[in-house]
Amino acid sequence: MPEEFKVTPWEVTGDIDYDALQRSFGTTPIDDALIARLERYGDVHPMIRRGIFYTHRDLVQILDGYDKGDRFCLYTGRGPSGNTHLGHMMPWMFTKWIQDTFGTDLLFQLTDDEKFLFKDMTLEDTTSMAYENALDIVALGFDPKKTRIILNTKNVQKMYPVALRVAKKVTFSTAKAVFGFDNSTNIGSIFYTTMQAVPAFLPTIDAGRQVPVLIPCGIDQDPHFRVTRDVAPGLGYPKPALICCKMMPGLNGGDKMSSSDENATIYTTDTPKQVKKKVGRAFTGGCVSVEEQREKGGNPEVCAVFKYFYYMFEHDDARLNELAEKCRSGSILCGECKMCLTERINVFLEEHQDKREKARDVVGDMTYDGFEW
Amino acid sequence: MPEEFKVTPWEVTGDIDYDALQRSFGTTPIDDALIARLERYGDVHPMIRRGIFYTHRDLVQILDGYDKGDRFCLYTGRGPSGNTHLGHMMPWMFTKWIQDTFGTDLLFQLTDDEKFLFKDMTLEDTTSMAYENALDIVALGFDPKKTRIILNTKNVQKMYPVALRVAKKVTFSTAKAVFGFDNSTNIGSIFYTTMQAVPAFLPTIDAGRQVPVLIPCGIDQDPHFRVTRDVAPGLGYPKPALICCKMMPGLNGGDKMSSSDENATIYTTDTPKQVKKKVGRAFTGGCVSVEEQREKGGNPEVCAVFKYFYYMFEHDDARLNELAEKCRSGSILCGECKMCLTERINVFLEEHQDKREKARDVVGDMTYDGFEW
Repeated sequence: MPEEFKVTPWEVTGDIDYDALQRSFGTTPIDDALIARLERYGDVHPMIRRGIFYTHRDLVQILDGYDKGDRFCLYTGRGPSGNTHLGHMMPWMFTKWIQDTFGTDLLFQLTDDEKFLFKDMTLEDTTSMAYENALDIVALGFDPKKTRIILNTKNVQKMYPVALRVAKKVTFSTAKAVFGFDNSTNIGSIFYTTMQAVPAFLPTIDAGRQVPVLIPCGIDQDPHFRVTRDVAPGLGYPKPALICCKMMPGLNGGDKMSSSDENATIYTTDTPKQVKKKVGRAFTGGCVSVEEQREKGGNPEVCAVFKYFYYMFEHDDARLNELAEKCRSGSILCGECKMCLTERINVFLEEHQDKREKARDVVGDMTYDGFEW
Repeated sequence: MPEEFKVTPWEVTGDIDYDALQRSFGTTPIDDALIARLERYGDVHPMIRRGIFYTHRDLVQILDGYDKGDRFCLYTGRGPSGNTHLGHMMPWMFTKWIQDTFGTDLLFQLTDDEKFLFKDMTLEDTTSMAYENALDIVALGFDPKKTRIILNTKNVQKMYPVALRVAKKVTFSTAKAVFGFDNSTNIGSIFYTTMQAVPAFLPTIDAGRQVPVLIPCGIDQDPHFRVTRDVAPGLGYPKPALICCKMMPGLNGGDKMSSSDENATIYTTDTPKQVKKKVGRAFTGGCVSVEEQREKGGNPEVCAVFKYFYYMFEHDDARLNELAEKCRSGSILCGECKMCLTERINVFLEEHQDKREKARDVVGDMTYDGFEW
């Protein structure tokens, strides 16, 4: 991996070279043939077509099994370190698409233990933040009958024996190599990956039977699941398959939307005014002056506003290409583009926030093993 | 610590120099003044008088508090790696004496997770062995109202949040230094000490309030509690106090009774015939021939049979001294001494095995947080 960037489950810095990451992690590209195959099951999600979900492990085996009538189960998660932002929602929306398309169960893990161990947060804070994040998950419309939310500190009674079985098969040497731990790492952080492995080995919701698991996640989470996949056969389980995405960029032009720059991050609880202000300040591919941009055009490739359309807010390829063309030709300026994105986000958030409030009534019914919030 | 012996929670080898161990671990000797003070609360247990429980941490503070009317709670434990033997029972009997003398609550931890992680055993085996060990614990007659048995895999729901708080304060560097871990150690073993710390930070049984904890245990467990004591103030808890004992010797003359030599180990489930056979083969301080021993006498200092009287089966100091004198003078031979010990052990075990069967009916009422076996 080039030194200029770093991608671990806890730190993403620098300009990410996603191809290099794929080579370094050893995942398989989602190529045209695989996309064509996915077309068979329904309209392929734009995040696949556009190379946002761009790499996988054993997805072909999952599909082969599905074609033969075998079920599979989805598993994804969230580390509840703060309010949900659009960067979190992006892969969740994709996960919902898989659930809808294949009619699968979904285990959604909230890792309040992880965020307590790795961040300067109290356990009370991470656990209550998990509830806030769960509202967003429910609001996205996952099938309530087929979706269960795991909260590590609440489900640990069932999880711990599985975590122990994983832990016995992972040496410190492996953890050090995979995650970059050193002598100063706390012993909870060293153990933690076992808890993230567990949902890959839990029985499905209604069948109570272990079926192969597919994990949609950010590519930064791959190290955890490399460990999980390594131990799976020894525990008598199939290796979980993965489908991994790039990081949602920040509005500041950075490679990953992150709570470390709140002004470049749109939260699901933001007001229309906040969204307008944040998008208004976004990094664009425009020129210094209106005159220059009219003449030379803008550069959508580097523009954070354009990336938001690309990642989440313009699913129609033709319209997206049209927007890019208008930008390049100088016929649309950054102000107009920002207004348009602001409008799209605010329409989305207004509806989402409404669903989010209603989620309070049902989030209790979607907990794994029936835990109480 | 001299190189000739090694004492860790998982390995005891060589001829143990208990004074050197005390200096190396930094515990405080139980001296005559402290023994005299203990006399105030009732007849001091022979294991104190004889220097079997020989060293402590903060026992004086516990007694000071008790004298002022403060309560304290006992905490001890067992790693359920096999059937209970007399070496396990020895400190438990002492613990019962403290409970009876001071009227304290007792948390008794069974670490089925530990033995799974550190031994070549399945989790099912360590958990079911925990039940067998619990029968011996109950049979010893701990106050059922004041005693609760913790089984780590069954109580983890309450324990895990506390374990996480401990874990966040312990670096790998510390764990490595205290326990001698290296790169090949599995990450569950590295985390495990946090679970052993937890009972020191749980509320007492009836008060639901945190009171100072006193831990009677083998000196080999001190490393765990050094870690526990280090993190306690930062978590807002008093440091647990310790009262530590030497290891029960094996019948083979070794420094620690261990299941690794079954013939030198008396289990609570042994038949009278098995006991007779094992004691019959014991290492003694006798001479090669009867004639020589009549003439020169035996050496009780090195005799495993004598040690059994000393540690557990002859609480009367005068009678013990008389036995030693008879041995040294050659007026009692090894055969007679072995018969006498066999008789004592079998009388004890007959009654214990009876209580052990009856324990099946009540062991379910003594579980922490009401877990079901």
